[in-house]
Amino acid sequence: MEIKKIAILTSGGDAPGMNNVIRAVVKSALLNNIEPFLVYGGYKGLYKNKIVSTTNKNVDKYLAQGGTFIYSTRFPKFKNPEIRQEAIGNLKRLGIDALLVIGGNGSYAGALKLHEEGIKVLTIPGTIDNDINSSEFTLGYDTALNTIVEAVDKLRDTATSHSRFFIVETMGHGAGDLALYSGIATGAEIIVTNEKPMTVDEIIAVVHDQVHNRRKRSVIAIVSEFIYPNLDNVAKAVQAKTKVSARAMKLGHLQRGGRPSAQDRILGTLMGSKVIELFNQGYSGYALSVNNGDIVPIRIEESLEMTQKSNKAKTIKYSKLNQF
Amino acid sequence: MEIKKIAILTSGGDAPGMNNVIRAVVKSALLNNIEPFLVYGGYKGLYKNKIVSTTNKNVDKYLAQGGTFIYSTRFPKFKNPEIRQEAIGNLKRLGIDALLVIGGNGSYAGALKLHEEGIKVLTIPGTIDNDINSSEFTLGYDTALNTIVEAVDKLRDTATSHSRFFIVETMGHGAGDLALYSGIATGAEIIVTNEKPMTVDEIIAVVHDQVHNRRKRSVIAIVSEFIYPNLDNVAKAVQAKTKVSARAMKLGHLQRGGRPSAQDRILGTLMGSKVIELFNQGYSGYALSVNNGDIVPIRIEESLEMTQKSNKAKTIKYSKLNQF
Amino acid sequence: MEIKKIAILTSGGDAPGMNNVIRAVVKSALLNNIEPFLVYGGYKGLYKNKIVSTTNKNVDKYLAQGGTFIYSTRFPKFKNPEIRQEAIGNLKRLGIDALLVIGGNGSYAGALKLHEEGIKVLTIPGTIDNDINSSEFTLGYDTALNTIVEAVDKLRDTATSHSRFFIVETMGHGAGDLALYSGIATGAEIIVTNEKPMTVDEIIAVVHDQVHNRRKRSVIAIVSEFIYPNLDNVAKAVQAKTKVSARAMKLGHLQRGGRPSAQDRILGTLMGSKVIELFNQGYSGYALSVNNGDIVPIRIEESLEMTQKSNKAKTIKYSKLNQF
Amino acid sequence: MEIKKIAILTSGGDAPGMNNVIRAVVKSALLNNIEPFLVYGGYKGLYKNKIVSTTNKNVDKYLAQGGTFIYSTRFPKFKNPEIRQEAIGNLKRLGIDALLVIGGNGSYAGALKLHEEGIKVLTIPGTIDNDINSSEFTLGYDTALNTIVEAVDKLRDTATSHSRFFIVETMGHGAGDLALYSGIATGAEIIVTNEKPMTVDEIIAVVHDQVHNRRKRSVIAIVSEFIYPNLDNVAKAVQAKTKVSARAMKLGHLQRGGRPSAQDRILGTLMGSKVIELFNQGYSGYALSVNNGDIVPIRIEESLEMTQKSNKAKTIKYSKLNQF
Repeated sequence: MEIKKIAILTSGGDAPGMNNVIRAVVKSALLNNIEPFLVYGGYKGLYKNKIVSTTNKNVDKYLAQGGTFIYSTRFPKFKNPEIRQEAIGNLKRLGIDALLVIGGNGSYAGALKLHEEGIKVLTIPGTIDNDINSSEFTLGYDTALNTIVEAVDKLRDTATSHSRFFIVETMGHGAGDLALYSGIATGAEIIVTNEKPMTVDEIIAVVHDQVHNRRKRSVIAIVSEFIYPNLDNVAKAVQAKTKVSARAMKLGHLQRGGRPSAQDRILGTLMGSKVIELFNQGYSGYALSVNNGDIVPIRIEESLEMTQKSNKAKTIKYSKLNQF
Repeated sequence: MEIKKIAILTSGGDAPGMNNVIRAVVKSALLNNIEPFLVYGGYKGLYKNKIVSTTNKNVDKYLAQGGTFIYSTRFPKFKNPEIRQEAIGNLKRLGIDALLVIGGNGSYAGALKLHEEGIKVLTIPGTIDNDINSSEFTLGYDTALNTIVEAVDKLRDTATSHSRFFIVETMGHGAGDLALYSGIATGAEIIVTNEKPMTVDEIIAVVHDQVHNRRKRSVIAIVSEFIYPNLDNVAKAVQAKTKVSARAMKLGHLQRGGRPSAQDRILGTLMGSKVIELFNQGYSGYALSVNNGDIVPIRIEESLEMTQKSNKAKTIKYSKLNQF
Repeated sequence: MEIKKIAILTSGGDAPGMNNVIRAVVKSALLNNIEPFLVYGGYKGLYKNKIVSTTNKNVDKYLAQGGTFIYSTRFPKFKNPEIRQEAIGNLKRLGIDALLVIGGNGSYAGALKLHEEGIKVLTIPGTIDNDINSSEFTLGYDTALNTIVEAVDKLRDTATSHSRFFIVETMGHGAGDLALYSGIATGAEIIVTNEKPMTVDEIIAVVHDQVHNRRKRSVIAIVSEFIYPNLDNVAKAVQAKTKVSARAMKLGHLQRGGRPSAQDRILGTLMGSKVIELFNQGYSGYALSVNNGDIVPIRIEESLEMTQKSNKAKTIKYSKLNQF
Repeated sequence: MEIKKIAILTSGGDAPGMNNVIRAVVKSALLNNIEPFLVYGGYKGLYKNKIVSTTNKNVDKYLAQGGTFIYSTRFPKFKNPEIRQEAIGNLKRLGIDALLVIGGNGSYAGALKLHEEGIKVLTIPGTIDNDINSSEFTLGYDTALNTIVEAVDKLRDTATSHSRFFIVETMGHGAGDLALYSGIATGAEIIVTNEKPMTVDEIIAVVHDQVHNRRKRSVIAIVSEFIYPNLDNVAKAVQAKTKVSARAMKLGHLQRGGRPSAQDRILGTLMGSKVIELFNQGYSGYALSVNNGDIVPIRIEESLEMTQKSNKAKTIKYSKLNQF
């Protein structure tokens, strides 16, 4: 049975590429004579009935913009079944028979509930953290990686000029990909992730070795968030023990926004282009996922389990090269 | 039997990421007590004996730079067996027992010859054109794609301000990926590749439809090189027939250089890190290739056949979205 | 006598920073209880009565965007007095008592006519060419300069990798600033402007000297538009005579669009912020101009004469450094 | 009397454009048959005799790179006359008769001492902080401004997506230019500098007004360093009082490095090109300064007084626009 009306929402942290998905879904809906609706403000907007019918006018102009033009919110109350019933009521009153949710694991959990409660739902992995294990890549990850690389390149200029150590913290929400791969790309001498943690003493030992034995002019450590409670203290400890000038830099929200990279635009567009087709084939409760380079539907439940079970980022040995 | 000395050369058009391979090979060679040599100027340098032993000093500083710091040349004479014997003699005199060639299909053909003539050879796909079919991605492709996307975004500003049509030509060397995927990323209303060509009349029809029926303020066509002998003439024909102001832009060599993107640096580093290991496992005559996201060795001969047989770029239907 | 209603139009080639002016004028108008109007499509829009009252809603969102969101046109018919009378009638019917024109010398000429015909008019120099001699800088020039520099840096990667000569053509519309200053910034060995032309033989001599005597691996020539009728032919001649591989690159419309640089945003905002104040002080027929770093009003007539009389770009001797 | 040997050093915080000065001085020295020396590591290098004769080989390659390739240090001991005598001895032993110092106010003070002690010294303002009042612009300021603008644009994406307040801290070392002008360029609703401070309660009042009265989806405050001892606490206070989600972002060392902008490269090259000429005209104890767009020598003593006396950044009223 083909769908007639589709609603789109973005939830959780914003990610570059979300706008490209929305654009592709709106346009492919209209191409297929399906009425697209935009939900403003994520699950909260669903609950508050901020659901607006749209045409393809103007969706093109968000193609090159970061963030999400239909806004996002954190809305923990959505775990409350009564709140969800209200949201479901809003969809039904408008005759909307399918909902696309773009977001991270938390958003997936909400989408699964809606599916179980009878709404046709698909999800698309939108988060810079690359922490959804059913998909090789999440939307926004490539842009964030490039943002980090550009930032670390700048820090390297100063580190080399002043013979200095920088400890740089990336996002990742527990997953190490942003730290690990930006570290490979920038030649970071030290990479610390949850999958491969290091004590401050171990960091000190590497900095000492790099500067005093290997005569490196600069040392960069890239570390995932949530590992060191106070980054400045790590820098201070390194400086005290190694006599190498040390500074800390938390990249923070810089990693979220920005023009989407080519890959994030393409991934967003290709995923968005598949949504109508999958709904019309009867899929619900599925997460679009990159698998061996293809976009395939995987059950949301399975996706959540894959994420819970193990952390995707591999402890790879390439960081050794960086220390050499 | 483990190798003792390895030489590295880059050949064909330069591509961002080449320097990252060289760095990774030099460093992993030294980590494994293998002496690395740099061949300056591609196959010509091999023939002219521009082969220099190197240490890991300084290879880090090319991490963020486009081009190839060991230079590249076009050297058709390398098809001549006597020239190749000279080159082989140079390697043997230095006791070099393994050669890594980074380049495109032409460079692969030369590498295959050397393999057949008894030299241990591996290749890495270094070309922005993404036209080596054994590998899902080639080094430099992601950077070039981002360069094109940024350029087309700029042209869109002007096209929208002036209600104008732009026809933009990308590289690709016969393969459509650069045009196709940059077209998806930028919402190009028209995408023309060898796999899905269009006559000038067909282009005119779309421009007419977009501007006069769909009231679009701007139309962008992205076309692969070698399809229209004179881009300016296409623009003129479009303007004459549609009365829409039209301009042509050949992106040309702008697409080649530039700081490598995160993905190209990572791919270059990961590929480079595998080279020593593969040589030590006895591989020769193989091309490192991205396959389902992994890096695997595929016989160079097979790689060349895959490229010859069919063109990888798919005629995908997403460009329809852009016209909607 | 204070103005009550103000209209804004952009004319001629689009330039980054135009949107920042429009934003600043709209906001400062509203802050002063003046009604702002946007004229869509330059002088043609004025004639066709595309004049729309606006509020400050949404003008912020164009802050970071190139082009002009109120569009621009070339409209030579505006030289016709009857056409202008129609336009003036449109303004009068709406009770608009002041007009801001953002554009280049051609737009200034139209603005002067309107001033002479009784409309209060001010102009702001909006063109990437930096060819308005009353103002040290024009809006868009800094962004275009950075775009050129980034492009030439990329070409240098390839030129160095392949030991090659590139001849790169910039815009400038007769003025040499874009070529001259981008040449200084990129270390171009050859800079050719109308103020300091070179024959093809002179170019050949420098390329020969650089490559064969000074052993430079790459040579870049940056030349203003309109000097060499066929850039490819220059490259071919250089290659034929010097045996150095040579390529031509016309940067063309790439130089126009793009996110405005910090300086263009600041200049646009500061200029736009002065417009209401100057109108209220009775200024009409004046061009806002950067003079010793300050923004001052200069009579449009005088501005046009300054431009006509002499070309601003100096033949400076710094290019010698680049050849050394 | 013409100079025969010149030494160059960079001191204090690194700044994009320093490499362009060094390049221009080395090349113009050689053009004038003067032997150029590089001092590695600032005043400390001068004292430790890290002074190396150089040729023009390779200086071109630092044209597009941030930082300083001859390194910099903080070296407070240079205030000690005996340390300086050692340094002066090193210069004399090498027959160096002129010294160029590129740095900030602290470096100027050291240079003045050397001048008073008989060494021919000129200085060039190299600091991103734009806090040298004798010069309208300092080297690195334009690049840093663009870096901040790009960062704030990204934060705006997230702020708008989530209806959020961001407080962003820039460098400036007491001078407000980086905060003020990046605030103008990005439409920051709040700009706080030493010249125009705000209490946390005043910030809260603006955020409240912007979000609750003016219905703005996002509010950005840009503040100079050293004003609020704990940025996170300001964010927390804002969130507590306004119920608007609030986050803090310290841009820190991100602002220092990076490819120099066109303007910084040009300014560095033009200043560097004047150094030999000024020394040969007998200038010593002077600071090259941008004055009404020209590069003129101003006595270092006067420059230091100008900086001490008043702070350059103007409390301009344009930020009102941003709140409207």
